Amino acid sequence: MRILSGIQPTGYLHYGNYFGAVRNWVRLQNDPANETFYFIADLHALTSNQAGYKSEVQVYIENMVVDLLASGIDPDNSVLFLQSDVPEHSELFVILSMLSPVSWLERNPTYKEKMEEIKGKDLDNLGFLGYPVLQTADIALYEATHVPVGKDQIPHLEISREIIRRFNTTYETEALIEPQPLLSEVPKLNGLDGRKMSKSYNNAIYLIDDPDTVRKKIMSMVTDVKRPKKSDPGHPDECLLFPYYAVFCQDQERIEDVRRRCMAAELGCVEDKKQMAELIIDYFADFHRKRQEILAKKNMVFDVLAEGAKKARAVARQTMEKVRQAMGMDTLRRYS
Amino acid sequence: MRILSGIQPTGYLHYGNYFGAVRNWVRLQNDPANETFYFIADLHALTSNQAGYKSEVQVYIENMVVDLLASGIDPDNSVLFLQSDVPEHSELFVILSMLSPVSWLERNPTYKEKMEEIKGKDLDNLGFLGYPVLQTADIALYEATHVPVGKDQIPHLEISREIIRRFNTTYETEALIEPQPLLSEVPKLNGLDGRKMSKSYNNAIYLIDDPDTVRKKIMSMVTDVKRPKKSDPGHPDECLLFPYYAVFCQDQERIEDVRRRCMAAELGCVEDKKQMAELIIDYFADFHRKRQEILAKKNMVFDVLAEGAKKARAVARQTMEKVRQAMGMDTLRRYS
Ligand code: SF4
Ligand code: SF4
Repeated sequence: MRILSGIQPTGYLHYGNYFGAVRNWVRLQNDPANETFYFIADLHALTSNQAGYKSEVQVYIENMVVDLLASGIDPDNSVLFLQSDVPEHSELFVILSMLSPVSWLERNPTYKEKMEEIKGKDLDNLGFLGYPVLQTADIALYEATHVPVGKDQIPHLEISREIIRRFNTTYETEALIEPQPLLSEVPKLNGLDGRKMSKSYNNAIYLIDDPDTVRKKIMSMVTDVKRPKKSDPGHPDECLLFPYYAVFCQDQERIEDVRRRCMAAELGCVEDKKQMAELIIDYFADFHRKRQEILAKKNMVFDVLAEGAKKARAVARQTMEKVRQAMGMDTLRRYS
Repeated sequence: MRILSGIQPTGYLHYGNYFGAVRNWVRLQNDPANETFYFIADLHALTSNQAGYKSEVQVYIENMVVDLLASGIDPDNSVLFLQSDVPEHSELFVILSMLSPVSWLERNPTYKEKMEEIKGKDLDNLGFLGYPVLQTADIALYEATHVPVGKDQIPHLEISREIIRRFNTTYETEALIEPQPLLSEVPKLNGLDGRKMSKSYNNAIYLIDDPDTVRKKIMSMVTDVKRPKKSDPGHPDECLLFPYYAVFCQDQERIEDVRRRCMAAELGCVEDKKQMAELIIDYFADFHRKRQEILAKKNMVFDVLAEGAKKARAVARQTMEKVRQAMGMDTLRRYS
């Protein structure tokens, strides 16, 4: 499988991103049957944050590269690159935009949702309307056969498949590859307040958070509202902390023991949260160790992105050659 | 002045294009105070003709280069290039699309008009909605200070100016230059049937038309409907042919003489049309001579486009550097 996935540099990498995507990226990368292309989607980030590239986005990019490497993305094994380093994304976007009905894009559920959701941000821009088309270019450019998606992202991939099909039909070609969804099972890890973990909800734990921050964040959780006193029996299935066990504890017996002692009012929430904080800190100890190693190497981020851009462009250029050939846009370029 | 203008390769160059744009291009080029950038807008042509690139557009491009050279565009004096040869157009387009409100684009008069006008063509595509943004990228990329426009195109340029202003405001920069309109006086030259000369109306005379074709086309004109017989007096001001004199005849006395003899029923339409055909053939004799010379040179079109692409890219790349610097998109590119 040729796999492509991207992540927007809209903030620091948090546990939601990690368990929702990055951990799976590492697994897919480590399967020798796969070729993996992972990119930082800085052009997509511009759709909702135009002005903040200098002050925010570039900082997030740099940190995200570090975090991805520390999470196990291996630049010798995956092509890890920055979207705006590969002009072919824009070139293919323009070509595919000619084949993308505005009506399809307006019907895109994310478009409507986000337009209503993010009231504070300026989303009335052509780039945001066209982001499924840019996404299609991202995928098609690397001839990805598979794109890891959650269930809610299947409609996006369907738009991409339709646009790619339309290109192939219009130019009577098979130059572009229709990608398949790779449904990945992703553990549900709620934010500190029970909602989806998100930077904008201010309920996230970040991979860069140090042990003390992790402890503070976990201790601040309101776990079981139906258990005002420690002597009351707890309700693990309604508790905001308990699902963290499925993610951070591999020991099934221990999980069952926590459940039993909680329901029997033998285990108090403060104690349990302390335990959980240590489990988490342990889980990411390796990450933090690797992170320190990476930060110690000067220019590591630049070198990785430079190497990634080179590899990515080599593939992207080939695809654009095929695209131009299919369209007849190559005839006058014999000179190049 | 740094001047930029483009032409869509949607057909062969006709007299409407020539007197509406190209003749003026040559004049602007020949003024040593100007730097002129002229391009063949093949990406814009895709907005209304996706499938026909191979079968039509590339043929038109090649012919258009020949016609422009034969018309007096001098590749040593102007930068003459093909839009799709310069990936920076697409790169800047993507960035500017983040700053272009969909509402502005939908309000664009051409958008509404064309959507209704060209029923047969598929214009429901993101590229067509976004074409004023691509146009803005075209202009901004070459730091054009002036864009030759007809009166009806002023609203387009206004959108471009607004988008450029928005970029400069958003990134607190003066990286992009707001272009001024260069209102050029353009003779009105109707098509053979009196409507605007256009390929789709099938009423055009093309620069490549040979003398016999020109004669046939002119002779086919219904000139003065109020003059059924030669012995009836004519009405030059309502005649479809008479305006051609203003364009093709430099001799004011001769024009007045035609008017007088027409109104006095001394000059018949058949005779007048014959005269006009010869005037036209004469007018373009030099063009045809040059055209033969150009066609005799092998690879001329390729060489001109290759050279043009090189010069255009050098400028475009510099502008993109400024754009990235202004956005903060350059920090992680120190390696490139
Ligand atoms: S003891 Fe643990 S599982 Fe039980 S309610 Fe408290 S935090 Fe939740
Ligand atoms: S004589 Fe010439 S100007 Fe007069 S009506 Fe005929 S074509 Fe027109």
